[in-house]
Amino acid sequence: MMLNYLMPTRIVMGENCVFGQRNLLSVFGKKAFIVTGKNSARINGSYEDVVKTLEANGQDHVLYDQVMANPTDVCVCEAGKLAREHHCDFVIGIGGGSPMDAAKAAAVLGINDISKEELFTLKFRSALPIIAIPTTAGTGSETTQYSVLVDTAEADGKTPKAAGPVKRSISSALMFPQIAFLDAKYTKGLNRDLTVHTAIDALTHAVEGMLTLRANSISDMLAVESIAMILDCMENLLAFPEDPSLFPREKREKLLLASSMAGMEIAQSGTAAPHSMGYHFTLNWGTDHGRANGLLMKSFLLLCREKEKAMKNADPSFRLRIPKLCGAFGMDLDKFFDIIEKLLGKREKASEEELAKWASLPMKNAANTYTLPDKEEIEKMFRESVG
Amino acid sequence: MMLNYLMPTRIVMGENCVFGQRNLLSVFGKKAFIVTGKNSARINGSYEDVVKTLEANGQDHVLYDQVMANPTDVCVCEAGKLAREHHCDFVIGIGGGSPMDAAKAAAVLGINDISKEELFTLKFRSALPIIAIPTTAGTGSETTQYSVLVDTAEADGKTPKAAGPVKRSISSALMFPQIAFLDAKYTKGLNRDLTVHTAIDALTHAVEGMLTLRANSISDMLAVESIAMILDCMENLLAFPEDPSLFPREKREKLLLASSMAGMEIAQSGTAAPHSMGYHFTLNWGTDHGRANGLLMKSFLLLCREKEKAMKNADPSFRLRIPKLCGAFGMDLDKFFDIIEKLLGKREKASEEELAKWASLPMKNAANTYTLPDKEEIEKMFRESVG
Repeated sequence: MMLNYLMPTRIVMGENCVFGQRNLLSVFGKKAFIVTGKNSARINGSYEDVVKTLEANGQDHVLYDQVMANPTDVCVCEAGKLAREHHCDFVIGIGGGSPMDAAKAAAVLGINDISKEELFTLKFRSALPIIAIPTTAGTGSETTQYSVLVDTAEADGKTPKAAGPVKRSISSALMFPQIAFLDAKYTKGLNRDLTVHTAIDALTHAVEGMLTLRANSISDMLAVESIAMILDCMENLLAFPEDPSLFPREKREKLLLASSMAGMEIAQSGTAAPHSMGYHFTLNWGTDHGRANGLLMKSFLLLCREKEKAMKNADPSFRLRIPKLCGAFGMDLDKFFDIIEKLLGKREKASEEELAKWASLPMKNAANTYTLPDKEEIEKMFRESVG
Repeated sequence: MMLNYLMPTRIVMGENCVFGQRNLLSVFGKKAFIVTGKNSARINGSYEDVVKTLEANGQDHVLYDQVMANPTDVCVCEAGKLAREHHCDFVIGIGGGSPMDAAKAAAVLGINDISKEELFTLKFRSALPIIAIPTTAGTGSETTQYSVLVDTAEADGKTPKAAGPVKRSISSALMFPQIAFLDAKYTKGLNRDLTVHTAIDALTHAVEGMLTLRANSISDMLAVESIAMILDCMENLLAFPEDPSLFPREKREKLLLASSMAGMEIAQSGTAAPHSMGYHFTLNWGTDHGRANGLLMKSFLLLCREKEKAMKNADPSFRLRIPKLCGAFGMDLDKFFDIIEKLLGKREKASEEELAKWASLPMKNAANTYTLPDKEEIEKMFRESVG
């Protein structure tokens, strides 16, 4: 048995835990650099909580609130420069995956005056301490070492120009947050689509993590638990109330923790092919990241089931991944697909041109997928999912 | 839902992982301070592996190999002084719980010239980085922040003199190892009693952790998985071969990882009353720590089942702990007790005087036990277990 486990983030969960556990923040220095999006952190109260907490601790802060959905290299370089200029001591990322991922990159750039290419190629050996406060339940960024950014290079010598901006993932143990504060009150105003798509994101993390070459006993345990917790909220997700505040708080809490636990899992295992494939939907159509992954799940699982049967020479445990997954689902694949289809509703459709183009591009995470899908199989998955 | 999770240790598992992953050690500085017992690390090859690894990295080392079973304050002060004198940069603890616990204290004292009382009362704010290499599968010390030491004070103003030396537990996040290296080749020579008693230790960690006030979703998940892994080795433990090397390697690996996962659990939850109670068997009779806990398990679980039924006003989840535990066992309590009795064999017997004395002493972990056993219940457990 081989294993390499690391997830050093402290997870603090509870109502009003940011202010209640403010002593945990007081050790990080005099000045915080807050990274967030334009609006949501103000609407859900998280920004106010953080400011109140810092004031109670006698800590200053500088605010960067210009993070867009799918943050770009330009955005994080701007944020990092601001953090450097103000000599900030630590970074607080508030929001969904975008602000938290941007905060991680800003934490590196806040102490290292390096280029975006040096950031992407991990030419750094330090980062400011990071505090993560998720306000959606899906990304798991609060418990991972990853930051996914849009590379806006016209031509960097590697990215084919035709591909336009591409999502690139940075992975560094320096980017594990020191603390993740989980307070479900921040997710209680989220509407149906945001709640469901982020829940699908967490679910695809849990599922895909189990279908990687790097999956191990501990990441599997986290996956199984996370899947069970999300499926325990499925009835509520399927019958989402018209008034989001009627969605039960205990289910919001469960989704939030399940999302962090799926984050703990993929911090070990990484994700599988669909995560690279879905970026194209997001970048071309603006599809929510979680929904993009969800669109690919059925076709991906069917491919895995088919290929698993033929894996005669592989590690025997690789031939039992889909049965283990169905054990975690507590149902067979067909029943599970029915639920996913109900959550997704009408599927997006790609043009023949899009399908052909995407299938021809390298899919980074295919190499971490235990069934090692080839180009034809990638194309088949695109076609079955959005063809 | 309230939760506070922290387990920052990197877990590296695999055959020859110490040497194979030696680059992970190279960052900790020029000189290692190795803490181990008198013999076992030399016999099982772990000491040789560490020395070879440090040499390959160009790192010096200083050896302290005088750790006894149930290490004393005197021992760790001696070790800490040696580490300070030699300006060691990091500490490597090799062995069972005793050397690893001693290594953690030595890591504190290796950088802080403080008294043993200051150590016990956490009057320190730094520690040398700690590397843990378990050579038994039970203590879980490699993934906890705890160090349990014997306080040899004649009279410190608090410990009743009549109690003689007492075991005291230090808990500090500074004592989480940076890395735990798990290589089951080090446990392959362990005889029947050591293998079984350490497996019982891990099992009692997993079980007791679920029966604490601090248990949470993540610690429960670790408990359930750890219990399943240990029970999966039960047939082999019950029919231990005459030649220990015939015990299957994959079962040794499973026990080793299960032990680390139970460590991850109790790092969150702490342990329950039996852990404080069993110290008396160890200190008075020399009973193995794991066996001591195992002797108390049946009576403790019966008490919990009885009290759980009466917990009308408590958090509802507290009334379902024993059913959840039985779910993890995959059997009812009576079947589980049968197995434990077979593992334990003939029970030790205490004198009336011993029973009376122990029952009169404060039991620290009772306050962390979800059923809050009182003095009479503690006495009843002692009597049922070794009366």
